[in-house]
This record gives sequence, structure tokens and C-alpha cells, in this order.
Amino acid sequence: MHKSRIAAFVIDSRIDAATAAAFWSQALRRKVEPVEDPADRYRTLEAGPDEPMILIQQVQHEPRIHLDIETDDMEAEVARLEQLGARRVEFVKRWWVMEAPTGQRFCVVKPQRGPLP
Amino acid sequence: MHKSRIAAFVIDSRIDAATAAAFWSQALRRKVEPVEDPADRYRTLEAGPDEPMILIQQVQHEPRIHLDIETDDMEAEVARLEQLGARRVEFVKRWWVMEAPTGQRFCVVKPQRGPLP
Repeated sequence: MHKSRIAAFVIDSRIDAATAAAFWSQALRRKVEPVEDPADRYRTLEAGPDEPMILIQQVQHEPRIHLDIETDDMEAEVARLEQLGARRVEFVKRWWVMEAPTGQRFCVVKPQRGPLP
Repeated sequence: MHKSRIAAFVIDSRIDAATAAAFWSQALRRKVEPVEDPADRYRTLEAGPDEPMILIQQVQHEPRIHLDIETDDMEAEVARLEQLGARRVEFVKRWWVMEAPTGQRFCVVKPQRGPLP
């Protein structure tokens, strides 16, 4: 049986990730993890090892928060979520964008924090 | 100095909370905590003691995920967030709805999980 769990809550914003992360870091009182490239479209806020990650992402679409589910078997997990009522929207780079029967979009991604427990 | 931290990620949906929670509980592999009133507009998914809560809420507006910040001094926290660039939208029942400079709405609420560390 394959595994999955919440990987992250992702704060999607149109403004650059450094500026967005500066606000959210202070608002949530969590440090921003350093990045090599200042133009990186992602930032990660500090979180406990058993907590979902909190990511800041620069996007083109409207601002929102979405969640990522990480799994060790992407096809099996997407099929499981379809059986629960979600639908596939599109495959982007390395992840599936899906839509929940409650209307929110979310992503199914490969393991982000080492092997799944 | 007052304290604050993330209280919860809230999955807002138009459908009834029991049905929405049934999907998200299975999707995220987290049990739904029991409620006294089946018509309750809220459900809580199981989470670790140091993790933000994951709530399911029935709403009138479009589906989204928002976050709640809990604080031991609501006026001081709202003022702090305003200084960081957020704006007050409206006070509802017992909480402030605010909008981040990155566009997402979020709420500032009283402590939800006992005293803040």
C-alpha cells in the first residue's frame, strides 16, 4: 500500500517571493530559510520536523493558499484521490494539480522531506 | 510583549461541513474529531499538539484555504500586522478578518489551544 501525507501549505502570491516571504515571516513569526538564488520563486518558512512545511511561491494566478500532498506512488495516490471525488486538472513539471470536490485546487507531489513514515 | 502564532489552516467550502470533512479526512489520512451537533458548520481534523489545526468550515463565499493567527492580545496583534502592511477588513463575532499585502485574507483570533508558549 502506498503512503501519502500533507507536505506543505503554499502561500501563492503575485509579488516576488522575497518580498512576500518578508511579510509572512514577520506575520507568522517564523524565519525564512536561506536560498542560493535571490530570484528563486520559492521561499520556505521555518517549521517543526513533523509539521507540514509552509512555502511562499510567486505565481501568475490570483493569490491563494493551497496544499500539497506528498506520496511515494504518484499514480496510485492520484487514482485514490479520484475515487474520493477529486479530479485531475493538469500535470505540471513533476506534480499533478487536482481539484477537490469542495472546490480547492491542490497538488500531489513526490516526497519532499525524506521517506514517508 | 504580546504573543501570536498560526492557530489553524481552514478549508472553506460551500458544501456542508460533514461532507467536506469526509473528503478531506480521507484525502489527508487524518481522522475527524467528533462533534456534538451534526449540523455544526465546523469540523476539526486530527493534528499533532505542536501542529497548526486543520479545520473544515462551511461558508457562503467561494472555496479557499485561509489561515488563522491566534494571539493573547488581539488589538496589539492587529496593529502589529497593520504595520507590516496588512489591512483590517472587518470584525466578525470574535475575530478580525484581515487582508495580507500579498492578497490573501486571514483571521486574527483568540487563543484556540490553551495559553500561547
